[in-house]
Amino acid sequence: MTIPPLNNGLTIIIPSSLTSESKDQRIKTYKVGQIARAAAVFRVNKIIIYRDPQFDDSEFIDLLLAYAETPQYLRKQLFPLKAQLRYAGILPPLRTPHHPIESRSSHINVGEYRVGVVVRQPGKKNSEKEVGSDKFVWVDIGIDSPVRLGVLPKEVSIGERVNVRISLRRPIQAKLVEKDEIPLYWGYSTIIADSLSKALKKLSRQNAQIIVTARQGQVLDTSVLKHVSGLIRHSSLTAIVFGSPKQGVESILANEGTQLSQIQCEALNIIPKQGTATVRTEEAVWATLSVLNLVR
Amino acid sequence: MTIPPLNNGLTIIIPSSLTSESKDQRIKTYKVGQIARAAAVFRVNKIIIYRDPQFDDSEFIDLLLAYAETPQYLRKQLFPLKAQLRYAGILPPLRTPHHPIESRSSHINVGEYRVGVVVRQPGKKNSEKEVGSDKFVWVDIGIDSPVRLGVLPKEVSIGERVNVRISLRRPIQAKLVEKDEIPLYWGYSTIIADSLSKALKKLSRQNAQIIVTARQGQVLDTSVLKHVSGLIRHSSLTAIVFGSPKQGVESILANEGTQLSQIQCEALNIIPKQGTATVRTEEAVWATLSVLNLVR
Repeated sequence: MTIPPLNNGLTIIIPSSLTSESKDQRIKTYKVGQIARAAAVFRVNKIIIYRDPQFDDSEFIDLLLAYAETPQYLRKQLFPLKAQLRYAGILPPLRTPHHPIESRSSHINVGEYRVGVVVRQPGKKNSEKEVGSDKFVWVDIGIDSPVRLGVLPKEVSIGERVNVRISLRRPIQAKLVEKDEIPLYWGYSTIIADSLSKALKKLSRQNAQIIVTARQGQVLDTSVLKHVSGLIRHSSLTAIVFGSPKQGVESILANEGTQLSQIQCEALNIIPKQGTATVRTEEAVWATLSVLNLVR
Repeated sequence: MTIPPLNNGLTIIIPSSLTSESKDQRIKTYKVGQIARAAAVFRVNKIIIYRDPQFDDSEFIDLLLAYAETPQYLRKQLFPLKAQLRYAGILPPLRTPHHPIESRSSHINVGEYRVGVVVRQPGKKNSEKEVGSDKFVWVDIGIDSPVRLGVLPKEVSIGERVNVRISLRRPIQAKLVEKDEIPLYWGYSTIIADSLSKALKKLSRQNAQIIVTARQGQVLDTSVLKHVSGLIRHSSLTAIVFGSPKQGVESILANEGTQLSQIQCEALNIIPKQGTATVRTEEAVWATLSVLNLVR
């Protein structure tokens, strides 16, 4: 697998009512999984879930998205058992670079990046996983045994999720790295926003290029796509806004007392000539990210 | 809802192993539903399911796709109860023009098209739905009571699915129409092919423009998209081929003893710089149809 470098930042903004169309928790779970997969396939960095007063499933969506984004080998340690995770086994694996399937320490190479969780610290109460020495910080990176961290640029605590890079092979040793130092797609973060307008105002202050998906928006064809390409490439952050299953972005904002025209954005009809009366949020996410991926 | 006219024909070709990644029949059903939705949103006319010897779920996929494509009010009449349909309630509604939600005869207008099923014929054993006269053919079109057919251009039989156009309002009367006379997106047909190479050879003979989705294909950017646009617009039939969850199109064909190079087609990488090791068939269907919809 050749691993593409990270481009400019990409945020998607989805409603807390994403899951409202189904009563079956398996299907709700699967639907969140579809968003997680789309985010991973198209290298989304951040998912904002805005509260839709008509149906607020934001905690569930946030939890499931975060769970899906966590490497399988760390899930038990980072997520306590919860009823909401009952069908989490249905979530499709992301198969991103930060979800490696190799678990043999003999197959780990210097320079590799891994997500890990701190399991032991000098002078602190140890976790269940007992390791040899007491002078170092040890991190579980999903291989046979925890690895020792070298120089520590910052304090870490037991149970903390960290990113590391392998620095030595025998014995395996690693050092802490920040996410933005890693030249690979390294997953997304999630956050819940109290309202769509608050989220958009914040993004505007960050000079994000906001793209609103709307059936009444400008019809996307190859020339509009070229125009959008320029906007995306000249911005360090692109944010794509999706409506709810029941309402478009414009009326959601209107209900919050905000006019769409007050927000600097491009409103695009991503699925011209659609054959159906409606397009579901998760469908719009796949369609929009597919199309904009061509010009990123 | 403004209803777009039908463009040139669009066929998608999917593997019988589409459902192989999940053991949960609900999820299998939902996955077929995702294909049905994509087909409806992007006005696909035909879905070919080719047998993948590694996992042949073609009967299930074919049945569920056909069920999803049938207006809700005709499903009970056209599909006998089957274990495979157990979770069919999970299928998302298509919301296409041929799946109207209006069921009051007082709200039916002259000129409207409807899918119906023949329920009574002169001189034939009647179905359960008894209607007044015996001299006419009567069709259930999902409103309060069956409607009478006017002049019959061809023989029909009880239980047959037909397309009609309302010709008179009081009493409601309709006439038979062929699918290709209807200026609306009117659903898709499905068929099972014994092998991918057989399906492609047949499409070649029909002068279809074949597009193969392949990670090793030409990277799709705006200029390649323009080129593809020309090909699609100059062909009366476009056929898009998808690989299986385990194998790409090229190796599936190779296992059948056919070289991809023997088939006249465009091989395209629709998701350049993908963040994940693999893209699932249903994901590739959404991504590809989204992108090609811009130039159709």
